[in-house]
Amino acid sequence: MTKFDNDQIDDKSLDSENEQEGISRRDMLTRSAGLAGLAGIGAVGGLTLGSLRSASAATKNKAHVGPGDLDEYYGFWSSGQAGEVRILGVPSMRELMRIPVFNRCSASGWGQTNESRKILTEGLLPETKEFLADKGGVWLNGDAHHPHMSFTDGTYDGRYLFINDKANNRVARIRCDVMKVDKIIEIPNASDIHGLRPQKYPRTGYVFANSEHRIPMPNDGSILDDPKQYHAVFTAIDGDTMEVAWQVMVDGNLDNCDADYQGLYAFSTCYNSENGVTLAEMTANEQDWAVVFDIKAIEKAVKKGDFKEMSGVPVVDGRKGSPYTRYIPISNSPHGCNTAPDGKHVVINGKLSPTVSVIDVTKLPDLFKDKIKPRDAIVAEPEVGLGPLHTAFDGKGNCFTTLFLDSQVAKWNLDKAIRAYQGEDVNPILEKIDVHYQPGHNHTSMGETKDADGKWLVSLNKFSKDRFINVGPLKPENDQLIDITSDKMEIVHDGATYAEPHDCIIVRTDIVNPAKTWTRGDVMWADAEAQAKKDGVNLMGDSKVIRDGNKVRVYMWSIAPAFSMPKFTVKQGDEVTVYVTNMDSIEDLTHGFTLENHGIAVEIGPQQTTSVTFKAERPGVHWYYCQWFCHALHMEMRGRMLVEPA
Amino acid sequence: MTKFDNDQIDDKSLDSENEQEGISRRDMLTRSAGLAGLAGIGAVGGLTLGSLRSASAATKNKAHVGPGDLDEYYGFWSSGQAGEVRILGVPSMRELMRIPVFNRCSASGWGQTNESRKILTEGLLPETKEFLADKGGVWLNGDAHHPHMSFTDGTYDGRYLFINDKANNRVARIRCDVMKVDKIIEIPNASDIHGLRPQKYPRTGYVFANSEHRIPMPNDGSILDDPKQYHAVFTAIDGDTMEVAWQVMVDGNLDNCDADYQGLYAFSTCYNSENGVTLAEMTANEQDWAVVFDIKAIEKAVKKGDFKEMSGVPVVDGRKGSPYTRYIPISNSPHGCNTAPDGKHVVINGKLSPTVSVIDVTKLPDLFKDKIKPRDAIVAEPEVGLGPLHTAFDGKGNCFTTLFLDSQVAKWNLDKAIRAYQGEDVNPILEKIDVHYQPGHNHTSMGETKDADGKWLVSLNKFSKDRFINVGPLKPENDQLIDITSDKMEIVHDGATYAEPHDCIIVRTDIVNPAKTWTRGDVMWADAEAQAKKDGVNLMGDSKVIRDGNKVRVYMWSIAPAFSMPKFTVKQGDEVTVYVTNMDSIEDLTHGFTLENHGIAVEIGPQQTTSVTFKAERPGVHWYYCQWFCHALHMEMRGRMLVEPA
Repeated sequence: MTKFDNDQIDDKSLDSENEQEGISRRDMLTRSAGLAGLAGIGAVGGLTLGSLRSASAATKNKAHVGPGDLDEYYGFWSSGQAGEVRILGVPSMRELMRIPVFNRCSASGWGQTNESRKILTEGLLPETKEFLADKGGVWLNGDAHHPHMSFTDGTYDGRYLFINDKANNRVARIRCDVMKVDKIIEIPNASDIHGLRPQKYPRTGYVFANSEHRIPMPNDGSILDDPKQYHAVFTAIDGDTMEVAWQVMVDGNLDNCDADYQGLYAFSTCYNSENGVTLAEMTANEQDWAVVFDIKAIEKAVKKGDFKEMSGVPVVDGRKGSPYTRYIPISNSPHGCNTAPDGKHVVINGKLSPTVSVIDVTKLPDLFKDKIKPRDAIVAEPEVGLGPLHTAFDGKGNCFTTLFLDSQVAKWNLDKAIRAYQGEDVNPILEKIDVHYQPGHNHTSMGETKDADGKWLVSLNKFSKDRFINVGPLKPENDQLIDITSDKMEIVHDGATYAEPHDCIIVRTDIVNPAKTWTRGDVMWADAEAQAKKDGVNLMGDSKVIRDGNKVRVYMWSIAPAFSMPKFTVKQGDEVTVYVTNMDSIEDLTHGFTLENHGIAVEIGPQQTTSVTFKAERPGVHWYYCQWFCHALHMEMRGRMLVEPA
Repeated sequence: MTKFDNDQIDDKSLDSENEQEGISRRDMLTRSAGLAGLAGIGAVGGLTLGSLRSASAATKNKAHVGPGDLDEYYGFWSSGQAGEVRILGVPSMRELMRIPVFNRCSASGWGQTNESRKILTEGLLPETKEFLADKGGVWLNGDAHHPHMSFTDGTYDGRYLFINDKANNRVARIRCDVMKVDKIIEIPNASDIHGLRPQKYPRTGYVFANSEHRIPMPNDGSILDDPKQYHAVFTAIDGDTMEVAWQVMVDGNLDNCDADYQGLYAFSTCYNSENGVTLAEMTANEQDWAVVFDIKAIEKAVKKGDFKEMSGVPVVDGRKGSPYTRYIPISNSPHGCNTAPDGKHVVINGKLSPTVSVIDVTKLPDLFKDKIKPRDAIVAEPEVGLGPLHTAFDGKGNCFTTLFLDSQVAKWNLDKAIRAYQGEDVNPILEKIDVHYQPGHNHTSMGETKDADGKWLVSLNKFSKDRFINVGPLKPENDQLIDITSDKMEIVHDGATYAEPHDCIIVRTDIVNPAKTWTRGDVMWADAEAQAKKDGVNLMGDSKVIRDGNKVRVYMWSIAPAFSMPKFTVKQGDEVTVYVTNMDSIEDLTHGFTLENHGIAVEIGPQQTTSVTFKAERPGVHWYYCQWFCHALHMEMRGRMLVEPA
């Protein structure tokens, strides 16, 4: 393990006011080495660079999408700490679009337009609004993990995408008609919103979100270094209203989650049954849990008042022993949680154990009635390899599990795994292939729905090392596309991606039907419409400057290659709001409004109205221009803001 | 022209305090229609969707780079209003990395780390620093246009990339060893820094940057709506020190620029010879110019004091009639400016004229001595098609010009064009192919150097329309890769890109040799090293909390999967600086530091030190965690900041 044999690291004692809880390097090395010994941890460092490549000559290029040919699937990719959602084409693996979500976007003005600022702020908790007031009002640097589409009757319905922000406890919703975020809420009583999945049946319905880190409730400083008073919660959000419906307090740290195909149960992996706060404490027990939530029972509890209201939300006590949950013992620190398209099985991925554990949902009513023991709900537990993190499905009874430590994907058969668990002498492992390197999430085409079609598997690999030309100390991730249509898995594409596609889904194109342009009257700019009405302005055709004390509202429109207003004049100190309506109705004819020397740039799609507010503090002549190429005379599409000195 | 026949547009009169200068819709339609008649403008709207596709069956997949195979070229792509630089592999056209430049980056903490904030602010003008003081201190939403590498002896040398911010008058430098920005400066006396090119010979040396928009000098509000007192400037930046060496005041609006292979001249296209401010005024004249700058003469002028100092910079008067410049008449509104690898010719692209004009640099000494007239420097002027914007070269005497209105690339032979201009009956146009759609910049492999190798041509197309599955009202750009090795150009790849790759360069991999990890002692974190020294802290191994009044400095390090400090305690109201040193030395083992509920997330590459400063305002328990996947126990890599209530 190269990384722990680093000559540069010498072993001085810690010298810190936090020393009593500090991890010394020696402890860390010992601890890590110990874990490595147990479960193969540390293999990241042990990888040989220049590992065997797939010989390109031998690769049939099944992922090839020729110039002008169209992809068969939409891929919706999260981006981890980049904070956005990405739309890829599958199988071409081309990145077709970025959707700003928890980041600021220089191109679109996400975080700067009044419309986006409303979405980014209105769902925040009051204390967060106050915290952000002197910081520009919107969060920076979110961490977008799990993008999932809304379901109807067990399959994608093309309405919405939902995604979590692990860093700042938010859940966002993306409208699939325009591929823009329309709602973001902050989850109260939570720290580190992590696993997220929509209800599959009868529809979404609920969006389930795990709070991973345990914190005091309330987290107001009255409880600090007293971890036994920390808690984590499971949250059900109403996907239609984007309000929190209820929460369930749990033991341990919730990790990933999924829902069943019957509308009865949700599932979360749950580690740190020790309720510890250090790495050593959190990994001490040999077993942790998969937690099962009884949705109907929780709804009844909320109805009958068996909850504590915290931050305006009903919080049901679902800790071990509660009637609303069951804790199924699973080996140390399970991670991924994946419901199979057969509607019956849920795969819990072992992480520190080489096994995956399969829950049979038909056994859960008996489990909640205490007719069987928690472990009796497990119907298979095949050993798949080192570091199993997530499992995807082909809809034909086969499962594909990423093995982080082995840098492999294991294909195994669910039925054989069940028979083996029952004692039959059958090997459920069908095949393993190397991926490059250290895979996290994976996903098959339509694989989290009842319509899993077994065509493509994507392995989201955390390290790329030598797979691409070197681009400096920061390397891309490597999203590999694997053809799973035959008996033999075949890697057909290495796709470099920027930090850090955490998860993805792959959706048939016929399910997603985005609009080609905006439609007038869209709710996204309802506030602008309302203000224009008050000001007697028709956004589709009027060019007006309205002065209202030191507030100035500038209304203009655009048709390539010109803004309707080639100049406007304001006074130094004015608060200026510029409304621009793009009157071009041609597909792809997006305009922009960039105001020089002010760091202002916003997107205005065909038929869209966008507004931005700023203070005119700099006297002089400031040009504004269209930054979205629109016409041969695009560069001439500009005007002047004249700011009279105070 | 569909877009001007829009039923939704009715023709109300303008109602605005700016009415006297407002463009009515009728004016705009007439004007546009008129221009369209003259030069084919408006074809954007006239395009037939569903244009002929390249049949994928017929496409030999020459761009295919198999899984694990490496690209032959680095592509450095600008991103327009997305504000970043992208590294692509060519010919795979995979995006390998994003380099944050004029944007904020959620993943890396660019704009948030102390190290990046220093780079983003130290080169700003004092008035801009003041303007930004209450806005978080750094610019948002830049507009990155032209990425170019430093040269030595007429070819790329792998040291630096330079790029301009059109929106906020900045030029940035990227260190190619680590692929991160190390310097950003704001250009004084300028508005809209647009065209940018490095000196090719003897070395870079100068970085030439055009100020496109005309503004008052000084632009302090003393002059407002008096366009005849507006000016534009040409700027020479010292690429080694990143300081402005000198500026030249010009007539008209400078657009794109390039340098010669002799170290004597620089060239800019220049439109708006009318010195107007509206679209109508700016396109009234039949001719504009290519401006030639005599570098040695300007250097002498600066030396002998023939300049006016403005904002601390020597500004030489290079307006028409100046000894330091020559204005060569070119048809209305020329755009691209491209020096051919033969070292002798410069191609000026017509935009509103269907021609390109070729300057012979050997004629320029005589032009400056007034032995010949400006137009005598033109040695060819072939008609290439509608809307010629930019020209690239194969190093074998052929030129590739993008035709924005025709949505084509025209391949033409330079020697034949010269002979035709001399009266010989020869057709210089060799071939035209459709691109999809509306191409702007283009670039060939090594094409802006003397080592142009004629292998690949990239056409950066502004509209993609029907080339990809629909992703909503906002469409991607389409960067097409064209094989130019044979007599027949062949499109081999359609590459979707997010807004808006404005320009790119394609560099042989042997020229670029980035580091695999950071090296301790790098100047990027010199301030952190200095502070640590003052505090008696060794960044490589000490974990310490230093209190200094209400300033708290937290020093920790990381080895996967743990921070050295599992918790630290501060008081509400403290100004906290966290320094994290990544002690892992394994390639690709980047860590991160995300502080929950604070919008803080930063990148810490292997062997790097990163710091971030914030105010601890929220009492309670706040977890920090590593957001760059590093280990099977990555999720457990975290700690707690305990904030005691005030």
